[in-house]
Amino acid sequence: MKIIVDAFGGDYSPEQTVLGALDALGAKSSLRIVLTGDEEKIAEVLKGQSYDKTRLEIVHAPAVVTGNDVPTEAVRKMTDSSLVKGLDLLASDDEAQAFVSTGATGAVLVGAYMKIGRIKGVSRPALAPALPTVKGKPVILCDCGANIDCKPVNLLHFAIMASAFSSAVTGAAKPVVGLLSNGAEAKKGNELNKEAFKLLSECPHIDFAGNCEARDMLSGDFDVVVADGFNGNIALKSAEGTAGAIFSVLMDGINKGGLRAKLGALLLRPVLRVVKNKMDYNAQGGACFLGLNKVVVKAHGAAKRKSVCAAILQARKLAKSEITEKIRMAVRTAAETGGNDAD
Amino acid sequence: MKIIVDAFGGDYSPEQTVLGALDALGAKSSLRIVLTGDEEKIAEVLKGQSYDKTRLEIVHAPAVVTGNDVPTEAVRKMTDSSLVKGLDLLASDDEAQAFVSTGATGAVLVGAYMKIGRIKGVSRPALAPALPTVKGKPVILCDCGANIDCKPVNLLHFAIMASAFSSAVTGAAKPVVGLLSNGAEAKKGNELNKEAFKLLSECPHIDFAGNCEARDMLSGDFDVVVADGFNGNIALKSAEGTAGAIFSVLMDGINKGGLRAKLGALLLRPVLRVVKNKMDYNAQGGACFLGLNKVVVKAHGAAKRKSVCAAILQARKLAKSEITEKIRMAVRTAAETGGNDAD
Repeated sequence: MKIIVDAFGGDYSPEQTVLGALDALGAKSSLRIVLTGDEEKIAEVLKGQSYDKTRLEIVHAPAVVTGNDVPTEAVRKMTDSSLVKGLDLLASDDEAQAFVSTGATGAVLVGAYMKIGRIKGVSRPALAPALPTVKGKPVILCDCGANIDCKPVNLLHFAIMASAFSSAVTGAAKPVVGLLSNGAEAKKGNELNKEAFKLLSECPHIDFAGNCEARDMLSGDFDVVVADGFNGNIALKSAEGTAGAIFSVLMDGINKGGLRAKLGALLLRPVLRVVKNKMDYNAQGGACFLGLNKVVVKAHGAAKRKSVCAAILQARKLAKSEITEKIRMAVRTAAETGGNDAD
Repeated sequence: MKIIVDAFGGDYSPEQTVLGALDALGAKSSLRIVLTGDEEKIAEVLKGQSYDKTRLEIVHAPAVVTGNDVPTEAVRKMTDSSLVKGLDLLASDDEAQAFVSTGATGAVLVGAYMKIGRIKGVSRPALAPALPTVKGKPVILCDCGANIDCKPVNLLHFAIMASAFSSAVTGAAKPVVGLLSNGAEAKKGNELNKEAFKLLSECPHIDFAGNCEARDMLSGDFDVVVADGFNGNIALKSAEGTAGAIFSVLMDGINKGGLRAKLGALLLRPVLRVVKNKMDYNAQGGACFLGLNKVVVKAHGAAKRKSVCAAILQARKLAKSEITEKIRMAVRTAAETGGNDAD
């Protein structure tokens, strides 16, 4: 399995990205990685590291796309950037099965869409992170920001694609799907949700459990939570912000709490670390951009070695599970049974 | 100041609701409270409690509206319920300035709207809780669920009303307003948001700081965050669910962590309690239903004594600040300068 990794564009690139790639190579002996980016800078990070040189290739790409670049323009014009070169490689190399980037989300999405193309029948590709839950297994939130204004059929496709994703990651035969809404009752929801609720209820290819309140998103009762990109983004970032706020207030309390608090924190450190790791969605890998002809994973911009490695291994797992083919089949079957009016 | 308190409808009613009312009476000597609900059951809770009897009145109302009742029907037909009787009192008694209930949100909103009526010029009354932030001062989230499908002008009114609320609660002269969106940049947002962004930018009566990512909602950088009721509800409940998930994983870790973890937790208990209290939005009081002709506060269904007391004192503060008059003025001024096309 060959995976392309954009070595630049993240907050800790290239160092942490390259080290994460080496960790992934160490973890899976059948894995081959192509790093795209400034050759010299990558070589500097590799110096002194021990790894299987036959499984790592570097493709020189001196430019870096940043969050300040306009995505469509960057993808068209910055052909010598680590992002665009990586996506071109993914598109042209039949052996390459996945692409991982810590780069600017907008550019990664636009680039992947333009270079790799969407699966026939998928109305809108969507960004789907795997989030931690109280029960340990992840929940797939789809969409979390790629599609801001949606139609009901888009949400049906999100459900179908994210179900395939969930099966690939957890092995669940029929993942439980919830529709993000302002209440658990069937009558709740805005206009979009009410229409989508009908489509999801009528689709025989997913296990639709009804509305999911944002409060229950991380409960572990759902394997997939479907939302338009605007609301999914709000749910995701509200969760992220709250976790950050709680840890910030906790650290502040410990710092100001004198000896007793500091000793308590020291003793509780292993537990606090477990909590932080368990609730840290970056540790789960990246967000998969579902609905394209090949696997594209967007890791967090602030991803360090461990998260980059997790994202690469997740991309490998998704490609190995033939998720693209599964989504193609699922969307086609849904269309044949009337659950699709997009194409 | 006379405040009507619905003694029933909450998870811990009437006991915790009545005790919370007594605490509020104890805290403010100029406060008078009318409790509505089953006289006998209320008397049972009062037995043995010491309080100023001249400042507490009970109005018998044997029925209880629950979440299973259809709001409009309940408000029309259950005239002997603690909720409807309370609202009727608020509407008819000129001395009564505020109403507090832990009852079913839908019924409280519908009842308050039907019985008290909206302020002239306000396109839609909205539910606005005060949430805790990292900086200590609260942020007002408006709307968080009363209006599921909104128009841009509704969001402008939410901003105006919540600014008046924020000033009343924190004393801030010009509260900083953010618009909940999927990114901080001005170009971010769905169709509704982009239109609302324009209206908010052009309104001279608020201090609009641009888009607010859900991640920054609890940062303390904003005094007011405006959203349609669907998005606001998702942001609020995602925050609530995440806080719950973190504490649940933490408790689980402590329980399974052996002696070391338990000792650590014991030493850290004061800090953990501060974190829990600081991040617990119920401790801040209730959610105010803004835009009505009198103050209506919806406390959490699971509110206990302390939260009920906080909600009553918050209602008192709001009424004392003449928030209704302030909102009336602010909406009128906004309309005169072209920022309102609702009426």
